[in-house]
Amino acid sequence: MRVKPVLHILGQLLQIVGLSMILPLLWGIYYREAESWVFVLCILITFLFGSFLKLVFEEEDIRLIEGFGVVSFCWLIIPLFGSLPFIISGNLNFIDAYFETISGFTTTGASVINNVEILPKCILFWRSFTHWLGGIGIVVLALIILPALSIGGRQIFLSEPSGPKLDKLKPQVREVGKIIYSIYIFFTLAQIVLLVLAGMSLFDASCHSFAALATGGFSTKNVSISYYNSPLIETIILIFMFLGATSFSLHYLALKGKIKSYIKDSEFLLYVFILGIATTIVTLDLRYQLHENLLLSFRHAIFNVISISSTTGYASTDFNLWPDLSKLVLLLLMLIGGCAGGTAGAIKVIRILLLVKIGLRELYRMIHPNAFFSIKFNGKIISEEILHAVSGFYIFYMITFGVCSLIMLGLGNDFLTSISSVATTMGGVGPGFNLVGPMTTYSYLPGMAKILMCFCMLTGRLEVFTLFVLFIPDYWKE
Amino acid sequence: MRVKPVLHILGQLLQIVGLSMILPLLWGIYYREAESWVFVLCILITFLFGSFLKLVFEEEDIRLIEGFGVVSFCWLIIPLFGSLPFIISGNLNFIDAYFETISGFTTTGASVINNVEILPKCILFWRSFTHWLGGIGIVVLALIILPALSIGGRQIFLSEPSGPKLDKLKPQVREVGKIIYSIYIFFTLAQIVLLVLAGMSLFDASCHSFAALATGGFSTKNVSISYYNSPLIETIILIFMFLGATSFSLHYLALKGKIKSYIKDSEFLLYVFILGIATTIVTLDLRYQLHENLLLSFRHAIFNVISISSTTGYASTDFNLWPDLSKLVLLLLMLIGGCAGGTAGAIKVIRILLLVKIGLRELYRMIHPNAFFSIKFNGKIISEEILHAVSGFYIFYMITFGVCSLIMLGLGNDFLTSISSVATTMGGVGPGFNLVGPMTTYSYLPGMAKILMCFCMLTGRLEVFTLFVLFIPDYWKE
Repeated sequence: MRVKPVLHILGQLLQIVGLSMILPLLWGIYYREAESWVFVLCILITFLFGSFLKLVFEEEDIRLIEGFGVVSFCWLIIPLFGSLPFIISGNLNFIDAYFETISGFTTTGASVINNVEILPKCILFWRSFTHWLGGIGIVVLALIILPALSIGGRQIFLSEPSGPKLDKLKPQVREVGKIIYSIYIFFTLAQIVLLVLAGMSLFDASCHSFAALATGGFSTKNVSISYYNSPLIETIILIFMFLGATSFSLHYLALKGKIKSYIKDSEFLLYVFILGIATTIVTLDLRYQLHENLLLSFRHAIFNVISISSTTGYASTDFNLWPDLSKLVLLLLMLIGGCAGGTAGAIKVIRILLLVKIGLRELYRMIHPNAFFSIKFNGKIISEEILHAVSGFYIFYMITFGVCSLIMLGLGNDFLTSISSVATTMGGVGPGFNLVGPMTTYSYLPGMAKILMCFCMLTGRLEVFTLFVLFIPDYWKE
Repeated sequence: MRVKPVLHILGQLLQIVGLSMILPLLWGIYYREAESWVFVLCILITFLFGSFLKLVFEEEDIRLIEGFGVVSFCWLIIPLFGSLPFIISGNLNFIDAYFETISGFTTTGASVINNVEILPKCILFWRSFTHWLGGIGIVVLALIILPALSIGGRQIFLSEPSGPKLDKLKPQVREVGKIIYSIYIFFTLAQIVLLVLAGMSLFDASCHSFAALATGGFSTKNVSISYYNSPLIETIILIFMFLGATSFSLHYLALKGKIKSYIKDSEFLLYVFILGIATTIVTLDLRYQLHENLLLSFRHAIFNVISISSTTGYASTDFNLWPDLSKLVLLLLMLIGGCAGGTAGAIKVIRILLLVKIGLRELYRMIHPNAFFSIKFNGKIISEEILHAVSGFYIFYMITFGVCSLIMLGLGNDFLTSISSVATTMGGVGPGFNLVGPMTTYSYLPGMAKILMCFCMLTGRLEVFTLFVLFIPDYWKE
């Protein structure tokens, strides 16, 4: 693995991040906020450092295997620059700022800021905009880079005629990227318009739009979406969280007129099925355990189920007060996550589908020990290699989940806080239960726990293997 | 699947169960208990019904595939007869008696009896003796029948020169069975002698010996082993729980002089490693969270870690009061269980070993995408088919665990009670946390929950697939 071409790409991305800080600067000027100068400084630092890297280290074709390094380093270092506005403005210390920015770029939405409403608007806008930037990075990662790296069975997408094919990493990124960017920007603008029409200010509509489509979860209100208590706003956000958590390949086909692509896709159908089951269980649980009326139970159930399963993490009510059955449903959704071609995190529905098929195949093998059953997805046979990759991914994910939960407990947290905080950060959701419930923040955790949470967010976002590969000595040999 | 030869085998086993009730009868006569007549009646019913089945349905060679039916039916129906003493003596109603007996035969050790010390000795002896009978059935199941049925990767044992090989089910069962019986009886007697020397009465020593070696967990005292508060007794029981949870193939080789077999076996080594890590974490947790002295912390840590991981479930202290970190360690041990060739339940260490290797192989494949890595166990290459079987088993086990936990929560139980009760009954451990902690019983659960627990005990004991195969319509076609 060569470091130089990686630094060149990092330089390019830092330039983009630097330039994108112009947007919060404009909001700062609009609101005549004293903190605007912070962004002038941050733009200079980030853009100049990016340009420096880009100029000093020459562009080279990077090899597939170097993709792990590119992805990991960019996701580790870009948040360092992204956290500058929080640090320079004096709002957060280094660890908190880095936590908040990683949470932003990984579209997790876990926060350490107890009172976001007193933050300057420019800072608040930047916080939400990191979701949007991260989200687009993730879709590119999900549809182009991870499949090329064959991570956890993702090569499955390469064989699809509708999906992108590639030999080298570079050229395809640009071509397919353009289409994705267009859909992503179109959805963002559509959502902003709808939210403004529903009564939000342009500022709040933009921030929530960034967070919902990227399945992030940062809000401009302390009590998240429950601040508005508006079924209309909840419905709009619900739709875009759902769109963000489903495959952008499907959206692309749908926009080209092939609207039936959705119902032909097994992953999409299973995702809708899971949402249906989960919503039903939670609705009944709220109705009969909390004695709320059926309509309100359904409203809270469907919003929070889609919010958690899309790994956004918005809350329309304090689901930490829900009965334990509903909590376990949410916890399982945190582990499952959304569809693979969107901005959602966690294990992903397609892997769950393949895992269930692997399990069922073994059951059938018991009866027909000499027959060979192949496993299909959307009508195509899936290679045994991909199935092993999916099993391997699941195993690694669960081991990481278990080990990190043990460490959280070792750091003095209670049972439900520990397992839910690890599940929610690895899945890129945001809120968990107890100490890290939807109406509290991560600020009460000790520093070590915050660092562990950063690791969980990154390792979950980068599909576990990307980060772990760097720890194998072989990787660094030329 | 033909029912007749299955009924013949069931008849044979019922005869054995009927005859084995002579032992509690003898204890009843010795203690001059009025309940002795119950056993006379039960012996007659069980033995005569067994003889009837054996005579009416002729012996036939059963085919491999019929093994699923044999195992499932026997494990469902024998406890019906085994529960007769509880019912006829008027001590338990039908559901409770069936629960208690399934718990006995599956060597789980979960109990619905709040005060065991007021039970007649003959009933108490029978309760513990079901462990012993179940334990020997499990070892035969583990070393002979399950491998032949290729369940969850168990065929791995068939390829071992030390393990038994078989073409048909019948003849080998007898031959290998004899060796296993001898070791099993030898260990039981040795433990009884040692416990008597350590100060237990012959009656208590027998009952605890049956439960420890079979990794069951029924005690003759309400507060389990903590009644004795004796490091010596704890040590003896600890050793035999450990022996029960390790492979009887290894014990066989060791008794033949090949004592080094233990340290050549990867599964055994990993099991010891897991016990070491778990004991260390729990010791430190008890030392620094509960502020107990180091020696006492270690004593409780090692006993309860080995008790839970061997899936026995004896408690030297109320570990429900332990800090959450130690509880999570115990919960993970409930899912992992002991080695595959012993009486322990749950997923088993060998599968964990192979799962970790499957995960690591995927990590290496990231760097060397074109290389093929084979996975070895004890120096031998494991076929991809077996690896798929192991993954499939793990997936099915976790899905069953998740679904049953949801149902337990749906029945109104709290979070920790629900997940721990399902983990502990599927793993054949016994005690869980909260409502089903080591110092309480399952008697407080509603009837539906008890039936679910019976399902969990059976499905876990029969390695998930055995029971689930019966639900596939194909299985019943000739």
